Amino acid sequence: MSFILTFLGKGGTGRTTVAIAAAKQFALQGQRTLLVGQDPGPAFGLLLGASVGATPQEIGANLSAVHLQSTALMESSWEELKRQEAQYLRTPILKAVYGQELGILPGMDGALALNALREFDGSGKYEVIVYDGAGDLSTLRMLGMPEIATWYFRRFRKVVADSDLWKAVSPFVQPVAAAVLNVNWSGDLFDQPAMQQSNNLMERGKAAVNDPSRVAAYLVTTQDAAAIATAKYLWGSAQQVGLTVGGVILNQSSDGSAIAPEFAPLPVTALPNYPGQDWQPLIEALPDFTQASQAPRAIAVNIAERKVALFLPGFDKTQVKLIQSGPEVTVEAGDQRRNIALPPELSGRQVTGAKFQDSFLIISF
Amino acid sequence: MSFILTFLGKGGTGRTTVAIAAAKQFALQGQRTLLVGQDPGPAFGLLLGASVGATPQEIGANLSAVHLQSTALMESSWEELKRQEAQYLRTPILKAVYGQELGILPGMDGALALNALREFDGSGKYEVIVYDGAGDLSTLRMLGMPEIATWYFRRFRKVVADSDLWKAVSPFVQPVAAAVLNVNWSGDLFDQPAMQQSNNLMERGKAAVNDPSRVAAYLVTTQDAAAIATAKYLWGSAQQVGLTVGGVILNQSSDGSAIAPEFAPLPVTALPNYPGQDWQPLIEALPDFTQASQAPRAIAVNIAERKVALFLPGFDKTQVKLIQSGPEVTVEAGDQRRNIALPPELSGRQVTGAKFQDSFLIISF
Repeated sequence: MSFILTFLGKGGTGRTTVAIAAAKQFALQGQRTLLVGQDPGPAFGLLLGASVGATPQEIGANLSAVHLQSTALMESSWEELKRQEAQYLRTPILKAVYGQELGILPGMDGALALNALREFDGSGKYEVIVYDGAGDLSTLRMLGMPEIATWYFRRFRKVVADSDLWKAVSPFVQPVAAAVLNVNWSGDLFDQPAMQQSNNLMERGKAAVNDPSRVAAYLVTTQDAAAIATAKYLWGSAQQVGLTVGGVILNQSSDGSAIAPEFAPLPVTALPNYPGQDWQPLIEALPDFTQASQAPRAIAVNIAERKVALFLPGFDKTQVKLIQSGPEVTVEAGDQRRNIALPPELSGRQVTGAKFQDSFLIISF
Repeated sequence: MSFILTFLGKGGTGRTTVAIAAAKQFALQGQRTLLVGQDPGPAFGLLLGASVGATPQEIGANLSAVHLQSTALMESSWEELKRQEAQYLRTPILKAVYGQELGILPGMDGALALNALREFDGSGKYEVIVYDGAGDLSTLRMLGMPEIATWYFRRFRKVVADSDLWKAVSPFVQPVAAAVLNVNWSGDLFDQPAMQQSNNLMERGKAAVNDPSRVAAYLVTTQDAAAIATAKYLWGSAQQVGLTVGGVILNQSSDGSAIAPEFAPLPVTALPNYPGQDWQPLIEALPDFTQASQAPRAIAVNIAERKVALFLPGFDKTQVKLIQSGPEVTVEAGDQRRNIALPPELSGRQVTGAKFQDSFLIISF
């Protein structure tokens, strides 16, 4: 298992430079480190000073790097999908389609990158993975995908099972399933091995994103007002996917104290201007990223007091909505929605109160 | 029908500032203009100097602005989906799920924004729409979605129809379809009204993206080497989704001649430093964006000579792959794949030759 670190912040604040320096810091400390670049453009290679390909390659002591390519990831995922299909279906149909023809639709980059991170993590080769993604909401959409996908699974499984349509169709499904499937069929549309397997993967991904000793983010900003406001916004938004933000990096500056109050209680680290070819001053100025676990957690459940506390810094009361239209409690903030899967002790209870105070939304059941 | 203009470039080069100035320029010329901000963070409102909501509102003479919100767009799209379901299914199942509970998965932002642009375009209210998106590959994924989605439709329709699986299952499908559908069923899985309707929308979107008098992009860069390299990369990548790039804006500079050779034959316009509250100097320095139609087109088909020419600037020969594994010709470059839907005269023919010369990939049939 690796510690996965990523950086959030407005474009142009130097996220990629900071990510490279962070990877070099871990490698210097003797940790086996993988630097993962997401954006396929040339900036990653230019800043790194090395051209890296779509599979990890060593670029220094303890340091490997990979430049993700969605087209390549798509091909291997497609092969895996065909392998699974051949396992479950008597006469596979996907075999007629080649991975090399498949175009990339919106969202596939995120899903493929998340899967790649899971595989790098599972390979046991790296103690640390530094992920240089878009650093904006799209990175949060990617890291939020496991939690949201498990919600869709849970919600639609019940809706389909309870529907008149499924009751009308299911008598026909049994003989068809017997005719076309290699495996036995329980009658539950969502209880096929392939679906359960992918849901289990998502559940594990969700647990990892929610654990700051597994996945953490740091904010990167400059003194620019729009960059600071964006960093604050991303801080709050990160909590919405359960991601802990460990601290703030004030780039191209010698003193972080001026912005520290805006990000309290997070530590703010000032980083000098990027000094050309010499990474050492940058590496030395970086914080200890493993301290992310000290930062406030995105969600805390207190079963005894029947309270759930969500940490939503950077938002004011008017920007946070609590919705209870479905069977679960939904929190909306920063153009994200989080359905809160409650522990069995609180599940199914009505909300009895909610208040927003000191950046915490406290919901009582 | 509107002219839709967007800007591509590395983060931090000032894309949003340029987009705002461009919208103001069109409005001053008397064109009814809508400025669309995609990223839900605070930077858009800060730079615009106005806080705008999730529905278009007037912010000046001839000028409206909207700050897209995926959660809100999701709710209205979900209502529309439920409406369609109720039309086609005897006992709808989606009605049990509320738009307000739906989380946003990767890719939904792009699909929802594209649909919103389509609706703004179709409203007849705006002569010009300036779209301020992420300006990177994700904007191209969004604009490439119509072409790629129609390919998936075309490809899988045939694969399913030809499959043993479908032949085994289809006798069961007829009675089930009769029992659950409100509409008649032709026996073709892809020939349902809802699927055809969405495919037709995609075909229209593809035609619009391919027509520089309907949709065009400009590159934004600074003198920074990584920004210039990123702009060049996005120039080539734009062609891969059929999007014409009309020119280059060199931001925070007084002279564009130094970088002009890198982007020939595109015109390069130097833009002065953003002068605080006064937008006038910026607006006056902007090029005439309607000249995008003068730029090289992404694809040109010559039926008489049996040749297809693809304009792929910024790539060298080693970065462009021609693949013919499926029934269509696939071109891969810049982490994108494009399946070329040939006109009937060339369709089904084998490739007899291909050369890459002066940024053009010329394929002979």
